[in-house]
Amino acid sequence: MAKGKNILFIMFDQLRWDYLSCYGHPHLHAPNIDRLAADGVRFDRAYIQSPICGSSRMSTYTGRYVHSHGASWNGIPLKVGEITMGDHLRNASMDCWLVGETHMRADAEGMERLGLEPDSLIGARVAECGFDVYERDDGMLPEGPDGFYDPDGAQEYNKHLAAKGYESDNPWHDFANSGLDEDGNVLFGWFLKNSTEAANIAEKDSETPYLTGRGIEFMDTHDGPWCCHLSFIKPHWPYIVPEPYASIYGPEHVLPVVRSDTERQNAHPVLKAFMNTKVGQTFSRQDVRDAVIPAYMGLIKQADDQMGRLFDWMGKTGRMEDTMIVLTSDHGDFLGDHWMGEKTFFQDASTKVPLIIYDASPEADGTRGTVSDALVESIDLAPTFVDVAGGEIAGHILEGHSLLPILHGQLNETPRHAVICEYDYSASPIADMLNASVRDAVMFMAANKRWKLIHCEGGHRSILFDLGNSADHAGIVATMYDHLFVWTRRQSQRTTRSEQQLIEMRSKSRGRGIVVGVYDENDAPLDLTVKYRGRTARPYTDLINKD
Amino acid sequence: MAKGKNILFIMFDQLRWDYLSCYGHPHLHAPNIDRLAADGVRFDRAYIQSPICGSSRMSTYTGRYVHSHGASWNGIPLKVGEITMGDHLRNASMDCWLVGETHMRADAEGMERLGLEPDSLIGARVAECGFDVYERDDGMLPEGPDGFYDPDGAQEYNKHLAAKGYESDNPWHDFANSGLDEDGNVLFGWFLKNSTEAANIAEKDSETPYLTGRGIEFMDTHDGPWCCHLSFIKPHWPYIVPEPYASIYGPEHVLPVVRSDTERQNAHPVLKAFMNTKVGQTFSRQDVRDAVIPAYMGLIKQADDQMGRLFDWMGKTGRMEDTMIVLTSDHGDFLGDHWMGEKTFFQDASTKVPLIIYDASPEADGTRGTVSDALVESIDLAPTFVDVAGGEIAGHILEGHSLLPILHGQLNETPRHAVICEYDYSASPIADMLNASVRDAVMFMAANKRWKLIHCEGGHRSILFDLGNSADHAGIVATMYDHLFVWTRRQSQRTTRSEQQLIEMRSKSRGRGIVVGVYDENDAPLDLTVKYRGRTARPYTDLINKD
Repeated sequence: MAKGKNILFIMFDQLRWDYLSCYGHPHLHAPNIDRLAADGVRFDRAYIQSPICGSSRMSTYTGRYVHSHGASWNGIPLKVGEITMGDHLRNASMDCWLVGETHMRADAEGMERLGLEPDSLIGARVAECGFDVYERDDGMLPEGPDGFYDPDGAQEYNKHLAAKGYESDNPWHDFANSGLDEDGNVLFGWFLKNSTEAANIAEKDSETPYLTGRGIEFMDTHDGPWCCHLSFIKPHWPYIVPEPYASIYGPEHVLPVVRSDTERQNAHPVLKAFMNTKVGQTFSRQDVRDAVIPAYMGLIKQADDQMGRLFDWMGKTGRMEDTMIVLTSDHGDFLGDHWMGEKTFFQDASTKVPLIIYDASPEADGTRGTVSDALVESIDLAPTFVDVAGGEIAGHILEGHSLLPILHGQLNETPRHAVICEYDYSASPIADMLNASVRDAVMFMAANKRWKLIHCEGGHRSILFDLGNSADHAGIVATMYDHLFVWTRRQSQRTTRSEQQLIEMRSKSRGRGIVVGVYDENDAPLDLTVKYRGRTARPYTDLINKD
Repeated sequence: MAKGKNILFIMFDQLRWDYLSCYGHPHLHAPNIDRLAADGVRFDRAYIQSPICGSSRMSTYTGRYVHSHGASWNGIPLKVGEITMGDHLRNASMDCWLVGETHMRADAEGMERLGLEPDSLIGARVAECGFDVYERDDGMLPEGPDGFYDPDGAQEYNKHLAAKGYESDNPWHDFANSGLDEDGNVLFGWFLKNSTEAANIAEKDSETPYLTGRGIEFMDTHDGPWCCHLSFIKPHWPYIVPEPYASIYGPEHVLPVVRSDTERQNAHPVLKAFMNTKVGQTFSRQDVRDAVIPAYMGLIKQADDQMGRLFDWMGKTGRMEDTMIVLTSDHGDFLGDHWMGEKTFFQDASTKVPLIIYDASPEADGTRGTVSDALVESIDLAPTFVDVAGGEIAGHILEGHSLLPILHGQLNETPRHAVICEYDYSASPIADMLNASVRDAVMFMAANKRWKLIHCEGGHRSILFDLGNSADHAGIVATMYDHLFVWTRRQSQRTTRSEQQLIEMRSKSRGRGIVVGVYDENDAPLDLTVKYRGRTARPYTDLINKD
């Protein structure tokens, strides 16, 4: 097998960039991920396109901004016509497989309109955002009074646990994501006080080792060239981890919270609404942070150990020689910073993600162990992968840039002036808190290396990070708005003709007989009017009078 | 049949708004179209979304801006997933048929990707932008050294002419669109000097009467409710018309050219490039205008007479009682005004179109014969038609507004602050003239009732119509840019969930078990955590050790 012909595309869910030792965490030693960074390039300014799982991933999987693909919140389906990483890679003769989570919601109406059967090859790919499915596991099978959040969640994993002897109608829930008290009561990970408990499951049976094993099985049974999207639900909530990881970290390892009273007192109305959510208020409590963050760190430590297992296996089987490894996350987690929980705003804790790329090829030898300061977006991965597969990057569809020139030491920067991130809260309760219409409950972020502008629809003033009050920085705000405006005007939907085709079209119609604005035969090159000269006919009165 | 349950949607190609007597033309009396205006509402500020056939029509047929659907020039296919007027109308139990031109280019690659066969019912609709085809006739079968512009053009019409006795391998060309000299030489309508000739065809066999007849045949054979798009190629070039229309108008009926030397001397570089095109230079000659415009007027006069035939037939058969009639155009024609020919810029001669709507229902009695000053776009037609069909307007997909409230006297204005028009010249030779990249060869227009702003990508200064130099009107430019920026930020791709669905989603996930940021059982309403309380399990060590 030729070198560099597979891609192992590892994604964690809700893994915050600065909770890895290679990004500077003082307590969370992740030596296996450190090793990957030492053998590859660590990107220090990698941004996602939306601070929520589904929309961020749909951007990654299509290589297009949320504003372009429209799946702007969890549960908003990806339009049936969108072209995915899988489509592009298969065009370049590389398979594209899923092992794990995508958070894809299929466009059932669109599929029905176009007569696409979900169980056909094409229909299944459309329904799974372009992947062939080795295992789909969105890792979420919670149940409320109205039923399951995702009845298809964690099905294979639950079967696996049941076969192992975990007695429950939902072992994902009762064992993998819950503790147990001495009286046999299940202590659900949903309640953050239980994050201090150990999950009632053997470590090897918990979600991250299970999916790592499935990834190894995939690689062991599939010839390349493939791209394998190995996509872990963890360290996403429920925040609970089995032993020994439950006992490694304590409150003494929790980083000081990053926030100020001023931040809350002068908060922009939209930002204030996010602070005032239940999750914002809860994570503003230090006791909650002290309960949750050690479990979150334990989940990451477990993930790193599983990466060690994975990389060791790849080394033994030759996969380290022929496989690019990409490790990233779909967004971060505020964990109480800036008076917020969860991820749905634009500070770096949420929108900046770890991104490490190990390229096995000799062209990358010069950059191993380096850190790139380039402004990178998660939409850069799809064109990077097409580049690795040796395909032609469809620049009229893919809105990012291949990172291969950076990995190969040929460039230090991407061509972009600003990264863009978007959040649509029209389907979130926060829209009701702000009394915002569906059209106005939308925000855009434009950021360069110095400034981050947030534009909130609905007539709100803009927000400028990092220097506080935007009124003192009108010129910077204007510049950042320029970046945003240029971006909004891009031709994101002109996806059916490539740049080269458009250029070729410039002269095509004249050769096919369209000669516009030509007064007489001498007014155009003779070769263009060859079909319009020297023809004869008869007066129509001679012809149709015969009828 | 219930009243107002059919729609006859008549479109002419390249019919300039001020070349109709009801819009003020002093010489071109069009009494039949006048009659429609007297019985309906004449819209005085109706704008198209792009000054070129294909893109303008794709906006009309999808109800979406060019920036949303992406078919930004002739020959750029409409993406396979786009939802059309036909899809919306069929959802509302109204058929949607085509008789004539659409300028649709099917997305063959996208159809293949999704496995859609062009000869299946769904595939055929996708390939014909949502219409069921009674007759497709784009009316263009020119031939150049590289072959035919559109090998499928005018096929049925050519068969019809051949059956009538017109002897030629391309009677569309040699008879319908050419004259004949005394020696039997074909005088092609492509050469503008021949516009003074009569087309060598019996008037009843020429394109407009032929298609009018096909429209009547359609209505005569189809029960409603239907929307019939009766779509004429004329008065589009080749500019040549048979007798008696060839002899009605002469140079004395040609309106004075609208242009000034200042306009050309101070021209913005992009505008100058359009003026410097072959067609711009040619139409700047008065002898060309004197040759072409009388033929153009003859074609319009013929169209009006055919409208008389059509409306008379509809009156006799009861169709005037149960059918809404909409008459419009896809764009205008500069005809030498502003030193330009053709249509591809933003002055009203090109971007403003005639729009007359006759609504048979009694609710419209109060507005008959009135003129509406509302800012209307051609994307308003699709939602208007859905409204007529009694369907629910999918506001998350359709970007226009129903005109029924105006037709019924309930409103005087649409909700918009500005109309938007776009032109993508990346596939035009003008891009080479300006040395513009594919991404930069794009322009946007934002206009309200007073001002019209043109933004040209590629670092050019902006253009402000109507008061000359924009430097004196910085505030107005800024306001118009605000309108444009707000528009570019709209969620045009969030088409898979309606506003109502998004609002319902705000509270849905909690009921399905997602309780985020909850510290303990008392921290959330009890009914939300009903599935998370009172469950028991056994220690995993008791279970899996049995294996």
